[in-house]
Amino acid sequence: MKLSQRVKEVPFSAIRKLTPLSDAAEKAGKKVYHLNIGAPDTKTPEEFLDAIRAIELQTIDYAPSKGIKELREATCGYYARRGKSYDPEKDIVITSGASEALRFAVETICDIGDNIVTTNPFYSNYQTMAKEIGIKMKTFDTIIDQGYRLPSKDVIQEAIDERSRAILISNPSNPTGAVYSHEEIQRIVDVALENDLFIIADEVYSEFIFDGAEFASFTGVEGIDDRLILMDSISKRFGACGARIGALICKNPEIMDGVVRLATSRLAVSTVDQIGAAALYDVSDAYFRNVNDEYNRRRHAIYEELTKLDGVKVTMPEGAFYVMPELPVKDTDDFAAWLLNDFEDEGETVMVAPAFGFYQNNDAGKTQVRLAYVINEKDIRRAIQILGKALVEYKKDHE
Amino acid sequence: MKLSQRVKEVPFSAIRKLTPLSDAAEKAGKKVYHLNIGAPDTKTPEEFLDAIRAIELQTIDYAPSKGIKELREATCGYYARRGKSYDPEKDIVITSGASEALRFAVETICDIGDNIVTTNPFYSNYQTMAKEIGIKMKTFDTIIDQGYRLPSKDVIQEAIDERSRAILISNPSNPTGAVYSHEEIQRIVDVALENDLFIIADEVYSEFIFDGAEFASFTGVEGIDDRLILMDSISKRFGACGARIGALICKNPEIMDGVVRLATSRLAVSTVDQIGAAALYDVSDAYFRNVNDEYNRRRHAIYEELTKLDGVKVTMPEGAFYVMPELPVKDTDDFAAWLLNDFEDEGETVMVAPAFGFYQNNDAGKTQVRLAYVINEKDIRRAIQILGKALVEYKKDHE
Ligand SMILES: Cc1ncc(COP(=O)(O)O)c(C=O)c1O
Ligand SMILES: Cc1ncc(COP(=O)(O)O)c(C=O)c1O
Repeated sequence: MKLSQRVKEVPFSAIRKLTPLSDAAEKAGKKVYHLNIGAPDTKTPEEFLDAIRAIELQTIDYAPSKGIKELREATCGYYARRGKSYDPEKDIVITSGASEALRFAVETICDIGDNIVTTNPFYSNYQTMAKEIGIKMKTFDTIIDQGYRLPSKDVIQEAIDERSRAILISNPSNPTGAVYSHEEIQRIVDVALENDLFIIADEVYSEFIFDGAEFASFTGVEGIDDRLILMDSISKRFGACGARIGALICKNPEIMDGVVRLATSRLAVSTVDQIGAAALYDVSDAYFRNVNDEYNRRRHAIYEELTKLDGVKVTMPEGAFYVMPELPVKDTDDFAAWLLNDFEDEGETVMVAPAFGFYQNNDAGKTQVRLAYVINEKDIRRAIQILGKALVEYKKDHE
Repeated sequence: MKLSQRVKEVPFSAIRKLTPLSDAAEKAGKKVYHLNIGAPDTKTPEEFLDAIRAIELQTIDYAPSKGIKELREATCGYYARRGKSYDPEKDIVITSGASEALRFAVETICDIGDNIVTTNPFYSNYQTMAKEIGIKMKTFDTIIDQGYRLPSKDVIQEAIDERSRAILISNPSNPTGAVYSHEEIQRIVDVALENDLFIIADEVYSEFIFDGAEFASFTGVEGIDDRLILMDSISKRFGACGARIGALICKNPEIMDGVVRLATSRLAVSTVDQIGAAALYDVSDAYFRNVNDEYNRRRHAIYEELTKLDGVKVTMPEGAFYVMPELPVKDTDDFAAWLLNDFEDEGETVMVAPAFGFYQNNDAGKTQVRLAYVINEKDIRRAIQILGKALVEYKKDHE
């Protein structure tokens, strides 16, 4: 009896590897500032639990495989307000987070050995999912010295081969914090059209775009309805990651036919969470404004503190709640472990995500870390100051 | 742009195909008795919604990937009461229903092109899942004339080849209602040991075994801890299908290492449903007794009524809440559609699941239907009487 090769190739999350170290540090009485996690700390609107508390069902039965009507309609209503019309009967299947939407999308368009094309670095679970279902990932680099912008058409084109089936774009980007312009998005569309590829749009951070900047959603591009597959999620939109509610949205009926088959096979998504999620769409615009303002303050704080540190290279993040600076160390994997095991400043230290796990065949991650600004502004400033002291100390130790 | 071959091969559920017909019949004013669905109609214990109503979380955050401690402990406590000890820290990962547990199990042990071995007929989503993740299913027949018992070792052995990785057994069986004896289970164990295969035990109907019969769970067999993978679910146990809570349980640390990677990649299972599910384990034994008594009455009723019908072959179901009789028709797919479209008795008709979708390469399903006794006793009797009248009428029409 042996394990499958595919599961062996599913990478252990870089963050997960550090968790025992951080647990140990906390157990030993150290305070750890967590800049490693990608989950908002903001309050989930009360509408969610209120709706759930009001449930009077006698039997918690399977929901329809494509999701309850109320939630499909509420989600399409959200897109309608953003200027894009989707049919709640035909164009949407509710999923267990955007995570499941991605898997369904890729399974529907990729056979074993096919590939999807994405940025390097990328959201690390793209790679995990690819290994799991037997497809490959091809990447084109976005680099810190160019503010993690999308590269030229030629560079993108180089990543594509005859087995490529789709371009997958996280915008705003996890892990870099880049937000792509209309021109960059059009570049992706052009390449997709020229190579007859699907576009998988991962816009789960679309509420996290700052200073009123306009968002170049793929849903705003004309003429790509047959090839655009949208991964949707309430995780970040409403600070409700634990509800596990997302959606796959697409106007291509053939795709939706495939997706419905996959959805039927796993039966349903949680009835209770769908009821809660539908109610979330009743929150006022003020909710979004408040959350956005809060993250914007944090963004300025983390950037400001990072720019004060010697040898740290950083570009101002424009969206999501991540920033990916380069640190003056050789191996951020080692540095991240050292922070937890061997360093403290007045009993406090910082947990960061080494960037290596966000890259494929690229050493840039060795000197970068991904920081999530999901703690309050004061703690962010203190955490980055600790990071600065740690860099000085680490340098002494490792010279 | 084309769809993947794998999604094209994912079969459309036989039941799903009939749903538009049943919707139309109901819209036209016909009463339809639903014997087609596999979801209990019994009340979910109040503990579930009560626990959820008491949730005071500010932020509905991702739960740990392997599940919340309370639920892992409650599930292991349940197995401990049944005489099997599992470590809630090491041996269990909470999943989105047994459906996800099955996918994780198979992905962990099967590479593309490997196969799992199971009964023919089988729970139809086994096939769907296999197509989805690029593995094959090999089957051995269990036949109505032998009461759907497991066949001899030789017959089982014939289904196995060098790419076989596991034997998957649903016990009690969906769709046949068979419950396998200690001797039959030992036969599977012997074959698994001789061929060095894993055993995936789908015992999600283990509470639905009647008249106090003993249950030969794989968990009671000595010496197979390294190869036994248990799919667990609260769907049927507590009549809580819509909670989407299950578990993968296994004492082989290598397997659990793979499963945890897969669980990490999809982030988490619903926080709220896990809290509700943990509370369900507080229900009294009386709950299980009452539910079991109710289904037992229904079982006797459906069997009694079926035996009264001319030309219907039926074996007494022993477990789950299904029975799979053979009807005196040539094509139950056609008959099932005809029941909804063209037949009524005093404005009423019946919806059944044609058995074809539960079989692979076997025509037995053409003359069989799966009936789920998940409606009350009186309705069951009436539904089967309608079925009897329909068979007479259908014969006239199709002679
Ligand atoms: C870029 C990106 N896409 C998708 C997801 C998946 O989110 P969920 O499955 O919670 O909807 C995440 C979660 O962190 C993410 O960062
Ligand atoms: C035999 C069998 N296994 C597994 C499942 C999956 O159940 P769930 O995913 O709801 O736990 C079902 C559901 O009907 C079933 O009949």
